[in-house]
Amino acid sequence: MEKEIIIGVLQMSDRASLDTNAYSSLSGDAILEVLTSYIKSPYRTIFNIIPDEYDLILKTFHTLAVEEKCCLILTTGGTGPAKRDVTVEATEAFCQKILPGFGELMRMESLKYVPTAILSRQTAGIYENTLLVNLPGKPAAISQCLQAVFPAIPYCIDLIEGPFILANEQNIKAFRPKSG
Amino acid sequence: MEKEIIIGVLQMSDRASLDTNAYSSLSGDAILEVLTSYIKSPYRTIFNIIPDEYDLILKTFHTLAVEEKCCLILTTGGTGPAKRDVTVEATEAFCQKILPGFGELMRMESLKYVPTAILSRQTAGIYENTLLVNLPGKPAAISQCLQAVFPAIPYCIDLIEGPFILANEQNIKAFRPKSG
Amino acid sequence: MEKEIIIGVLQMSDRASLDTNAYSSLSGDAILEVLTSYIKSPYRTIFNIIPDEYDLILKTFHTLAVEEKCCLILTTGGTGPAKRDVTVEATEAFCQKILPGFGELMRMESLKYVPTAILSRQTAGIYENTLLVNLPGKPAAISQCLQAVFPAIPYCIDLIEGPFILANEQNIKAFRPKSG
Repeated sequence: MEKEIIIGVLQMSDRASLDTNAYSSLSGDAILEVLTSYIKSPYRTIFNIIPDEYDLILKTFHTLAVEEKCCLILTTGGTGPAKRDVTVEATEAFCQKILPGFGELMRMESLKYVPTAILSRQTAGIYENTLLVNLPGKPAAISQCLQAVFPAIPYCIDLIEGPFILANEQNIKAFRPKSG
Repeated sequence: MEKEIIIGVLQMSDRASLDTNAYSSLSGDAILEVLTSYIKSPYRTIFNIIPDEYDLILKTFHTLAVEEKCCLILTTGGTGPAKRDVTVEATEAFCQKILPGFGELMRMESLKYVPTAILSRQTAGIYENTLLVNLPGKPAAISQCLQAVFPAIPYCIDLIEGPFILANEQNIKAFRPKSG
Repeated sequence: MEKEIIIGVLQMSDRASLDTNAYSSLSGDAILEVLTSYIKSPYRTIFNIIPDEYDLILKTFHTLAVEEKCCLILTTGGTGPAKRDVTVEATEAFCQKILPGFGELMRMESLKYVPTAILSRQTAGIYENTLLVNLPGKPAAISQCLQAVFPAIPYCIDLIEGPFILANEQNIKAFRPKSG
Protein backbone atom coordinates (compact mmCIF):
# COMPACT_ATOMS: atom_id res chain seq x y z
CA MET A 1 0.00 0.00 0.00
CA GLU A 2 1.27 3.43 -0.91
CA LYS A 3 1.99 5.92 1.85
CA GLU A 4 -0.54 8.72 2.16
CA ILE A 5 0.76 12.22 1.35
CA ILE A 6 -0.06 14.54 4.25
CA ILE A 7 1.17 18.14 4.19
CA GLY A 8 1.10 20.48 7.16
CA VAL A 9 0.62 24.19 6.52
CA LEU A 10 1.36 26.37 9.53
CA GLN A 11 0.75 30.09 9.55
CA MET A 12 2.38 32.08 12.34
CA SER A 13 0.48 35.25 13.05
CA ASP A 14 -0.25 37.00 16.29
CA ARG A 15 -3.02 38.96 14.67
CA ALA A 16 -4.53 36.21 12.56
CA SER A 17 -4.70 33.72 15.40
CA LEU A 18 -6.91 36.12 17.37
CA ASP A 19 -8.99 37.01 14.41
CA THR A 20 -11.87 35.18 12.89
CA ASN A 21 -12.11 37.25 9.73
CA ALA A 22 -11.57 35.39 6.52
CA TYR A 23 -8.81 37.68 5.25
CA SER A 24 -6.48 36.68 8.09
CA SER A 25 -5.55 33.34 6.53
CA LEU A 26 -4.22 34.93 3.35
CA SER A 27 -0.67 33.53 3.70
CA GLY A 28 -1.70 29.99 4.46
CA ASP A 29 -4.29 30.11 1.69
CA ALA A 30 -1.58 31.20 -0.74
CA ILE A 31 0.41 28.07 0.15
CA LEU A 32 -2.64 25.82 -0.28
CA GLU A 33 -3.30 27.33 -3.69
CA VAL A 34 0.26 26.72 -4.91
CA LEU A 35 0.13 23.10 -3.67
CA THR A 36 -3.09 22.53 -5.62
CA SER A 37 -1.38 23.79 -8.73
CA TYR A 38 1.91 21.85 -8.23
CA ILE A 39 0.92 18.42 -6.89
CA LYS A 40 -0.79 15.81 -9.07
CA SER A 41 -0.82 12.93 -6.56
CA PRO A 42 -3.76 12.76 -4.16
CA TYR A 43 -2.81 14.47 -0.89
CA ARG A 44 -4.34 15.81 2.28
CA THR A 45 -3.46 19.08 4.07
CA ILE A 46 -3.64 20.10 7.71
CA PHE A 47 -3.84 23.88 8.09
CA ASN A 48 -3.22 25.64 11.42
CA ILE A 49 -2.91 29.31 12.35
CA ILE A 50 -1.07 29.87 15.61
CA PRO A 51 0.53 32.82 17.42
CA ASP A 52 4.26 33.52 17.18
CA GLU A 53 5.15 31.57 20.33
CA TYR A 54 8.27 29.43 20.36
CA ASP A 55 6.98 26.60 22.58
CA LEU A 56 3.70 26.37 20.74
CA ILE A 57 5.42 26.32 17.33
CA LEU A 58 7.76 23.56 18.48
CA LYS A 59 4.85 21.55 19.87
CA THR A 60 2.89 21.98 16.64
CA PHE A 61 5.89 20.84 14.57
CA HIS A 62 5.99 17.72 16.73
CA THR A 63 2.29 17.04 16.32
CA LEU A 64 2.39 17.53 12.55
CA ALA A 65 5.52 15.41 12.04
CA VAL A 66 5.09 12.63 14.58
CA GLU A 67 1.35 12.25 15.19
CA GLU A 68 -0.07 13.44 11.89
CA LYS A 69 2.83 11.93 9.90
CA CYS A 70 3.20 14.88 7.52
CA CYS A 71 6.00 14.30 5.00
CA LEU A 72 6.16 18.06 4.44
CA ILE A 73 5.51 21.02 6.73
CA LEU A 74 5.37 24.49 5.19
CA THR A 75 5.40 27.49 7.51
CA THR A 76 4.63 31.11 6.77
CA GLY A 77 5.62 34.08 8.89
CA GLY A 78 8.02 34.68 11.75
CA THR A 79 11.30 34.66 9.82
CA GLY A 80 12.26 38.33 10.13
CA PRO A 81 14.59 40.16 12.54
CA ALA A 82 11.93 41.33 15.03
CA LYS A 83 11.76 39.95 18.55
CA ARG A 84 8.44 38.17 17.92
CA ASP A 85 9.85 36.34 14.88
CA VAL A 86 10.76 32.90 16.27
CA THR A 87 9.77 30.44 13.54
CA VAL A 88 13.39 29.97 12.47
CA GLU A 89 14.53 29.39 16.06
CA ALA A 90 11.87 26.69 16.45
CA THR A 91 12.79 25.15 13.09
CA GLU A 92 16.47 24.91 14.00
CA ALA A 93 15.64 23.44 17.39
CA PHE A 94 13.27 20.86 15.92
CA CYS A 95 15.20 19.64 12.88
CA GLN A 96 17.96 17.03 12.97
CA LYS A 97 19.55 18.31 9.77
CA ILE A 98 19.45 21.84 8.38
CA LEU A 99 19.39 22.33 4.60
CA PRO A 100 20.88 25.81 4.10
CA GLY A 101 20.40 25.70 0.33
CA PHE A 102 16.65 26.32 0.66
CA GLY A 103 17.09 29.62 2.51
CA GLU A 104 19.91 30.71 0.22
CA LEU A 105 17.87 30.09 -2.92
CA MET A 106 14.69 31.67 -1.55
CA ARG A 107 16.55 34.82 -0.48
CA MET A 108 18.32 34.99 -3.85
CA GLU A 109 14.93 34.64 -5.56
CA SER A 110 13.25 37.27 -3.37
CA LEU A 111 16.18 39.65 -3.95
CA LYS A 112 14.99 39.94 -7.54
CA TYR A 113 11.93 41.75 -6.17
CA VAL A 114 12.94 43.46 -2.90
CA PRO A 115 16.34 44.32 -1.37
CA THR A 116 14.89 43.58 2.08
CA ALA A 117 14.91 39.86 1.17
CA ILE A 118 18.18 39.61 3.09
CA LEU A 119 16.25 40.27 6.32
CA SER A 120 14.54 36.89 6.07
CA ARG A 121 16.22 34.15 8.07
CA GLN A 122 14.07 31.41 6.49
CA THR A 123 15.59 27.95 6.36
CA ALA A 124 14.61 24.28 5.94
CA GLY A 125 15.45 21.04 7.62
CA ILE A 126 14.71 17.38 8.22
CA TYR A 127 13.15 15.67 11.22
CA GLU A 128 13.01 11.89 10.70
CA ASN A 129 10.80 11.46 7.61
CA THR A 130 9.56 15.04 7.49
CA LEU A 131 10.87 17.97 5.45
CA LEU A 132 10.14 21.36 7.03
CA VAL A 133 10.43 24.52 4.92
CA ASN A 134 9.98 28.11 6.13
CA LEU A 135 8.25 30.38 3.63
CA PRO A 136 7.92 34.18 3.82
CA GLY A 137 4.82 35.88 5.17
CA LYS A 138 3.56 37.69 2.09
CA PRO A 139 1.46 35.79 -0.48
CA ALA A 140 3.43 37.10 -3.49
CA ALA A 141 6.75 36.10 -1.90
CA ILE A 142 5.33 32.68 -0.97
CA SER A 143 4.61 31.77 -4.56
CA GLN A 144 7.98 33.12 -5.79
CA CYS A 145 9.82 31.04 -3.20
CA LEU A 146 7.82 27.86 -3.72
CA GLN A 147 8.37 28.09 -7.45
CA ALA A 148 12.13 28.18 -6.78
CA VAL A 149 12.40 25.33 -4.28
CA PHE A 150 9.51 22.99 -5.13
CA PRO A 151 11.38 21.21 -7.96
CA ALA A 152 13.71 19.70 -5.32
CA ILE A 153 11.03 18.76 -2.78
CA PRO A 154 9.66 15.46 -4.19
CA TYR A 155 13.19 13.98 -4.50
CA CYS A 156 14.10 15.21 -1.03
CA ILE A 157 11.06 13.39 0.34
CA ASP A 158 12.14 10.24 -1.56
CA LEU A 159 15.56 10.46 0.15
CA ILE A 160 14.03 10.64 3.62
CA GLU A 161 11.74 7.69 2.79
CA GLY A 162 8.52 9.61 2.54
CA PRO A 163 5.72 9.03 0.00
CA PHE A 164 6.24 9.44 -3.75
CA ILE A 165 4.93 12.85 -4.86
CA LEU A 166 4.02 13.31 -8.50
CA ALA A 167 4.23 16.91 -9.68
CA ASN A 168 1.78 18.51 -12.04
CA GLU A 169 4.22 18.86 -14.95
CA GLN A 170 2.13 21.53 -16.64
CA ASN A 171 2.78 23.92 -13.76
CA ILE A 172 6.12 22.83 -12.27
CA LYS A 173 8.87 20.35 -13.10
CA ALA A 174 10.03 18.13 -10.23
CA PHE A 175 13.54 16.80 -10.69
CA ARG A 176 14.74 13.31 -9.75
CA PRO A 177 18.35 12.42 -10.68
CA LYS A 178 18.73 9.19 -12.69
CA SER A 179 20.68 7.21 -10.08
CA GLY A 180 20.14 7.53 -6.33
CA MET B 1 11.02 63.22 20.64
CA GLU B 2 12.75 61.33 17.88
CA LYS B 3 15.39 58.79 18.79
CA GLU B 4 18.95 59.84 18.06
CA ILE B 5 20.75 57.84 15.34
CA ILE B 6 24.08 56.61 16.72
CA ILE B 7 26.26 54.33 14.59
CA GLY B 8 29.26 52.43 15.90
CA VAL B 9 32.17 51.78 13.53
CA LEU B 10 34.64 49.24 14.78
CA GLN B 11 37.87 48.47 12.99
CA MET B 12 39.69 45.29 14.00
CA SER B 13 43.36 45.55 13.29
CA ASP B 14 46.34 44.30 15.23
CA ARG B 15 48.60 46.61 13.31
CA ALA B 16 46.41 49.69 13.28
CA SER B 17 45.65 49.57 17.00
CA LEU B 18 49.38 49.84 17.75
CA ASP B 19 49.96 52.47 15.16
CA THR B 20 49.36 56.20 15.36
CA ASN B 21 49.86 56.93 11.69
CA ALA B 22 46.89 58.34 9.88
CA TYR B 23 46.87 55.67 7.15
CA SER B 24 46.04 52.94 9.61
CA SER B 25 42.37 53.89 9.88
CA LEU B 26 41.75 53.46 6.15
CA SER B 27 39.06 50.77 6.55
CA GLY B 28 37.09 52.60 9.21
CA ASP B 29 37.38 55.84 7.26
CA ALA B 30 35.98 54.08 4.20
CA ILE B 31 32.89 53.13 6.21
CA LEU B 32 32.45 56.67 7.54
CA GLU B 33 32.67 58.05 4.03
CA VAL B 34 29.98 55.70 2.71
CA LEU B 35 27.69 56.58 5.62
CA THR B 36 28.07 60.28 4.85
CA SER B 37 27.04 59.62 1.28
CA TYR B 38 24.11 57.29 2.12
CA ILE B 39 22.41 58.80 5.20
CA LYS B 40 20.37 62.01 5.02
CA SER B 41 19.09 62.06 8.63
CA PRO B 42 21.33 63.67 11.24
CA TYR B 43 23.42 60.98 12.95
CA ARG B 44 26.44 60.59 15.15
CA THR B 45 29.23 57.99 14.83
CA ILE B 46 31.50 56.37 17.38
CA PHE B 47 34.71 55.07 15.79
CA ASN B 48 37.03 52.64 17.57
CA ILE B 49 40.11 50.75 16.39
CA ILE B 50 40.87 47.72 18.52
CA PRO B 51 43.10 44.63 18.23
CA ASP B 52 41.73 41.29 17.00
CA GLU B 53 40.95 39.96 20.48
CA TYR B 54 37.75 38.02 21.06
CA ASP B 55 37.01 39.22 24.60
CA LEU B 56 37.74 42.83 23.75
CA ILE B 57 35.57 42.72 20.63
CA LEU B 58 32.69 41.22 22.60
CA LYS B 59 33.08 43.86 25.33
CA THR B 60 33.15 46.64 22.73
CA PHE B 61 29.98 45.30 21.05
CA HIS B 62 28.30 45.44 24.46
CA THR B 63 29.45 49.00 25.14
CA LEU B 64 28.35 50.22 21.70
CA ALA B 65 24.96 48.48 21.81
CA VAL B 66 23.95 48.82 25.45
CA GLU B 67 25.72 51.88 26.83
CA GLU B 68 26.10 53.98 23.69
CA LYS B 69 22.73 52.82 22.29
CA CYS B 70 23.98 52.42 18.71
CA CYS B 71 21.19 51.23 16.39
CA LEU B 72 23.84 50.00 13.96
CA ILE B 73 27.36 48.65 14.46
CA LEU B 74 29.55 48.17 11.41
CA THR B 75 32.77 46.19 11.81
CA THR B 76 35.71 45.89 9.45
CA GLY B 77 38.36 43.18 9.53
CA GLY B 78 38.73 39.81 11.19
CA THR B 79 36.37 37.78 8.99
CA GLY B 80 38.90 35.57 7.20
CA PRO B 81 40.09 32.00 7.86
CA ALA B 82 43.26 32.90 9.81
CA LYS B 83 43.59 32.13 13.49
CA ARG B 84 43.59 35.83 14.49
CA ASP B 85 40.31 36.44 12.63
CA VAL B 86 37.70 36.31 15.40
CA THR B 87 35.22 39.08 14.55
CA VAL B 88 32.67 36.57 13.27
CA GLU B 89 33.01 34.40 16.37
CA ALA B 90 32.35 37.45 18.57
CA THR B 91 29.42 38.51 16.37
CA GLU B 92 27.76 35.08 16.60
CA ALA B 93 28.31 34.98 20.37
CA PHE B 94 26.89 38.47 20.88
CA CYS B 95 23.84 38.43 18.62
CA GLN B 96 20.47 36.96 19.56
CA LYS B 97 19.47 36.42 15.94
CA ILE B 98 21.77 35.82 12.97
CA LEU B 99 20.75 37.19 9.56
CA PRO B 100 22.55 34.92 7.07
CA GLY B 101 21.28 36.86 4.05
CA PHE B 102 23.73 39.71 4.68
CA GLY B 103 26.81 37.47 4.45
CA GLU B 104 25.40 35.57 1.47
CA LEU B 105 24.73 38.76 -0.49
CA MET B 106 28.05 40.40 0.41
CA ARG B 107 30.00 37.30 -0.65
CA MET B 108 27.99 37.06 -3.87
CA GLU B 109 28.74 40.72 -4.53
CA SER B 110 32.47 40.40 -3.75
CA LEU B 111 32.67 37.32 -5.99
CA LYS B 112 32.13 39.65 -8.95
CA TYR B 113 35.57 41.08 -8.18
CA VAL B 114 37.65 38.33 -6.50
CA PRO B 115 37.23 34.54 -6.26
CA THR B 116 38.66 34.67 -2.73
CA ALA B 117 35.40 36.30 -1.59
CA ILE B 118 34.31 32.84 -0.41
CA LEU B 119 37.01 32.99 2.29
CA SER B 120 35.10 35.71 4.13
CA ARG B 121 32.89 34.45 6.93
CA GLN B 122 31.20 37.84 7.40
CA THR B 123 27.69 37.80 8.80
CA ALA B 124 25.14 40.07 10.52
CA GLY B 125 22.82 39.81 13.46
CA ILE B 126 20.55 41.47 15.98
CA TYR B 127 21.09 42.21 19.65
CA GLU B 128 18.01 43.83 21.19
CA ASN B 129 17.59 47.11 19.22
CA THR B 130 20.96 46.97 17.47
CA LEU B 131 21.84 45.63 14.02
CA LEU B 132 25.46 44.47 13.73
CA VAL B 133 27.00 43.95 10.28
CA ASN B 134 30.49 42.61 9.52
CA LEU B 135 32.17 44.28 6.56
CA PRO B 136 35.38 43.17 4.82
CA GLY B 137 38.75 44.73 5.63
CA LYS B 138 39.62 46.37 2.31
CA PRO B 139 38.17 49.83 1.51
CA ALA B 140 37.10 48.87 -2.02
CA ALA B 141 35.30 45.76 -0.77
CA ILE B 142 33.66 47.78 2.02
CA SER B 143 31.94 50.12 -0.38
CA GLN B 144 30.88 47.26 -2.71
CA CYS B 145 29.32 45.40 0.22
CA LEU B 146 27.61 48.42 1.78
CA GLN B 147 26.11 49.31 -1.57
CA ALA B 148 24.60 45.83 -1.72
CA VAL B 149 23.17 45.59 1.80
CA PHE B 150 22.44 49.20 2.80
CA PRO B 151 19.05 49.33 1.01
CA ALA B 152 17.72 46.84 3.60
CA ILE B 153 19.27 48.45 6.68
CA PRO B 154 16.82 51.31 7.45
CA TYR B 155 13.81 48.95 7.33
CA CYS B 156 15.65 46.39 9.45
CA ILE B 157 16.22 49.07 12.08
CA ASP B 158 12.51 49.98 11.92
CA LEU B 159 11.65 46.32 12.64
CA ILE B 160 13.86 46.20 15.72
CA GLU B 161 12.35 49.48 16.96
CA GLY B 162 15.34 51.67 16.33
CA PRO B 163 15.31 55.24 14.99
CA PHE B 164 13.95 56.13 11.55
CA ILE B 165 16.84 56.51 9.08
CA LEU B 166 16.27 58.56 5.96
CA ALA B 167 18.54 57.60 3.07
CA ASN B 168 20.11 60.07 0.69
CA GLU B 169 18.09 59.00 -2.35
CA GLN B 170 20.57 60.53 -4.80
CA ASN B 171 23.19 58.02 -3.71
CA ILE B 172 21.27 54.96 -2.50
CA LYS B 173 17.66 53.79 -2.38
CA ALA B 174 16.44 52.44 0.96
CA PHE B 175 13.49 50.10 0.65
CA ARG B 176 10.51 49.92 3.02
CA PRO B 177 7.70 47.52 2.04
CA LYS B 178 4.23 49.11 1.97
CA SER B 179 2.67 47.08 4.80
CA GLY B 180 4.54 45.93 7.90
CA MET C 1 63.01 23.90 3.39
CA GLU C 2 59.61 24.16 1.75
CA LYS C 3 56.67 22.43 3.36
CA GLU C 4 55.46 19.33 1.56
CA ILE C 5 51.99 19.54 -0.01
CA ILE C 6 49.90 16.61 1.19
CA ILE C 7 46.23 16.35 0.19
CA GLY C 8 43.76 13.96 1.74
CA VAL C 9 40.94 12.62 -0.43
CA LEU C 10 38.18 10.91 1.50
CA GLN C 11 35.31 9.11 -0.17
CA MET C 12 32.32 8.28 2.00
CA SER C 13 30.44 5.33 0.62
CA ASP C 14 28.71 2.47 2.36
CA ARG C 15 28.68 0.47 -0.85
CA ALA C 16 32.15 1.31 -2.07
CA SER C 17 33.84 0.53 1.24
CA LEU C 18 32.50 -3.03 1.07
CA ASP C 19 33.30 -3.42 -2.54
CA THR C 20 36.58 -4.27 -4.21
CA ASN C 21 35.51 -3.51 -7.77
CA ALA C 22 37.38 -0.74 -9.49
CA TYR C 23 34.28 1.26 -10.37
CA SER C 24 33.49 1.95 -6.76
CA SER C 25 36.18 4.63 -6.37
CA LEU C 26 34.72 6.76 -9.16
CA SER C 27 34.10 9.83 -6.98
CA GLY C 28 37.52 9.84 -5.33
CA ASP C 29 39.16 9.23 -8.69
CA ALA C 30 37.33 12.24 -10.11
CA ILE C 31 38.86 14.41 -7.38
CA LEU C 32 42.36 13.03 -8.02
CA GLU C 33 42.00 13.75 -11.71
CA VAL C 34 40.98 17.37 -11.15
CA LEU C 35 43.91 17.87 -8.74
CA THR C 36 46.33 16.57 -11.36
CA SER C 37 44.97 19.07 -13.82
CA TYR C 38 44.91 22.05 -11.41
CA ILE C 39 48.11 21.78 -9.30
CA LYS C 40 51.54 22.46 -10.75
CA SER C 41 53.57 22.14 -7.52
CA PRO C 42 54.73 18.65 -6.54
CA TYR C 43 52.24 17.12 -4.11
CA ARG C 44 51.28 13.82 -2.57
CA THR C 45 47.75 12.46 -2.02
CA ILE C 46 46.31 10.08 0.56
CA PHE C 47 43.11 8.43 -0.67
CA ASN C 48 40.73 6.59 1.65
CA ILE C 49 37.29 5.08 1.11
CA ILE C 50 35.33 4.64 4.31
CA PRO C 51 31.71 3.93 5.26
CA ASP C 52 29.31 6.74 6.21
CA GLU C 53 29.97 6.48 9.96
CA TYR C 54 30.24 9.65 12.00
CA ASP C 55 32.89 8.48 14.48
CA LEU C 56 35.04 6.95 11.78
CA ILE C 57 34.84 10.07 9.60
CA LEU C 58 35.83 12.26 12.54
CA LYS C 59 38.75 9.95 13.39
CA THR C 60 39.91 9.94 9.78
CA PHE C 61 39.78 13.77 9.62
CA HIS C 62 42.00 13.81 12.69
CA THR C 63 44.48 11.33 11.22
CA LEU C 64 44.68 13.20 7.91
CA ALA C 65 45.03 16.65 9.50
CA VAL C 66 47.16 15.96 12.56
CA GLU C 67 49.20 12.85 11.82
CA GLU C 68 49.48 13.03 8.05
CA LYS C 69 49.71 16.84 8.05
CA CYS C 70 47.43 17.34 5.03
CA CYS C 71 46.98 21.04 4.21
CA LEU C 72 43.80 20.16 2.32
CA ILE C 73 41.20 17.45 2.83
CA LEU C 74 38.58 16.93 0.12
CA THR C 75 35.60 14.73 0.91
CA THR C 76 33.01 13.24 -1.43
CA GLY C 77 29.60 11.89 -0.45
CA GLY C 78 27.42 12.09 2.63
CA THR C 79 26.16 15.67 2.25
CA GLY C 80 22.50 14.98 1.43
CA PRO C 81 19.38 14.94 3.60
CA ALA C 82 19.25 11.17 4.23
CA LYS C 83 19.89 9.70 7.66
CA ARG C 84 23.16 8.03 6.58
CA ASP C 85 24.54 11.34 5.29
CA VAL C 86 26.77 12.52 8.15
CA THR C 87 29.86 14.01 6.45
CA VAL C 88 28.66 17.56 7.12
CA GLU C 89 27.96 16.80 10.77
CA ALA C 90 31.51 15.45 11.16
CA THR C 91 32.96 18.44 9.30
CA GLU C 92 31.17 20.92 11.54
CA ALA C 93 32.25 19.04 14.66
CA PHE C 94 35.88 18.83 13.53
CA CYS C 95 36.50 22.33 12.19
CA GLN C 96 37.36 25.35 14.35
CA LYS C 97 36.06 27.81 11.77
CA ILE C 98 33.32 27.22 9.17
CA LEU C 99 33.62 28.96 5.80
CA PRO C 100 30.00 29.17 4.56
CA GLY C 101 31.02 30.79 1.27
CA PHE C 102 32.26 27.47 -0.12
CA GLY C 103 28.91 25.71 0.30
CA GLU C 104 26.98 28.73 -0.97
CA LEU C 105 29.07 28.97 -4.13
CA MET C 106 29.05 25.22 -4.81
CA ARG C 107 25.27 25.05 -4.46
CA MET C 108 24.86 28.12 -6.67
CA GLU C 109 27.11 26.47 -9.25
CA SER C 110 25.32 23.10 -9.10
CA LEU C 111 21.95 24.87 -9.41
CA LYS C 112 22.92 25.70 -12.99
CA TYR C 113 22.65 21.96 -13.69
CA VAL C 114 20.11 20.48 -11.25
CA PRO C 115 17.42 22.06 -9.03
CA THR C 116 18.16 19.40 -6.39
CA ALA C 117 21.48 21.17 -5.68
CA ILE C 118 19.74 22.83 -2.72
CA LEU C 119 19.56 19.41 -1.01
CA SER C 120 23.33 19.37 -0.54
CA ARG C 121 24.49 20.60 2.85
CA GLN C 122 28.16 20.68 1.79
CA THR C 123 30.38 23.13 3.62
CA ALA C 124 34.07 23.85 4.34
CA GLY C 125 36.13 24.76 7.35
CA ILE C 126 39.50 25.14 9.01
CA TYR C 127 41.21 22.96 11.60
CA GLU C 128 44.58 24.43 12.59
CA ASN C 129 46.60 24.42 9.33
CA THR C 130 44.16 22.29 7.35
CA LEU C 131 41.38 23.36 4.99
CA LEU C 132 38.57 20.80 4.70
CA VAL C 133 36.10 21.01 1.79
CA ASN C 134 33.05 18.80 1.24
CA LEU C 135 32.40 17.96 -2.40
CA PRO C 136 29.30 16.29 -3.86
CA GLY C 137 29.14 12.56 -4.58
CA LYS C 138 28.76 12.55 -8.36
CA PRO C 139 31.87 12.90 -10.55
CA ALA C 140 30.33 15.54 -12.83
CA ALA C 141 29.26 17.67 -9.86
CA ILE C 142 32.70 17.26 -8.28
CA SER C 143 34.46 18.85 -11.20
CA GLN C 144 31.88 21.66 -11.48
CA CYS C 145 32.28 22.48 -7.79
CA LEU C 146 36.08 22.28 -7.73
CA GLN C 147 36.26 24.57 -10.74
CA ALA C 148 34.22 27.13 -8.80
CA VAL C 149 36.07 27.04 -5.48
CA PHE C 150 39.64 26.01 -6.36
CA PRO C 151 40.75 29.56 -7.33
CA ALA C 152 40.41 30.54 -3.64
CA ILE C 153 42.09 27.44 -2.16
CA PRO C 154 45.82 28.24 -2.55
CA TYR C 155 45.42 31.68 -0.91
CA CYS C 156 43.29 30.18 1.87
CA ILE C 157 46.11 27.72 2.59
CA ASP C 158 48.58 30.64 2.64
CA LEU C 159 46.42 32.35 5.28
CA ILE C 160 46.41 29.30 7.54
CA GLU C 161 50.19 28.98 7.14
CA GLY C 162 50.19 25.90 4.97
CA PRO C 163 52.50 25.20 2.00
CA PHE C 164 52.56 27.42 -1.10
CA ILE C 165 50.50 25.79 -3.88
CA LEU C 166 51.21 26.79 -7.46
CA ALA C 167 48.26 26.31 -9.80
CA ASN C 168 48.50 25.07 -13.33
CA GLU C 169 47.51 28.36 -14.98
CA GLN C 170 46.56 26.68 -18.26
CA ASN C 171 43.72 24.87 -16.52
CA ILE C 172 42.74 27.09 -13.58
CA LYS C 173 43.63 30.53 -12.24
CA ALA C 174 44.44 30.72 -8.53
CA PHE C 175 43.93 34.17 -7.06
CA ARG C 176 46.14 35.84 -4.45
CA PRO C 177 45.28 39.45 -3.53
CA LYS C 178 48.21 41.89 -3.83
CA SER C 179 48.51 42.78 -0.13
CA GLY C 180 47.85 40.35 2.71
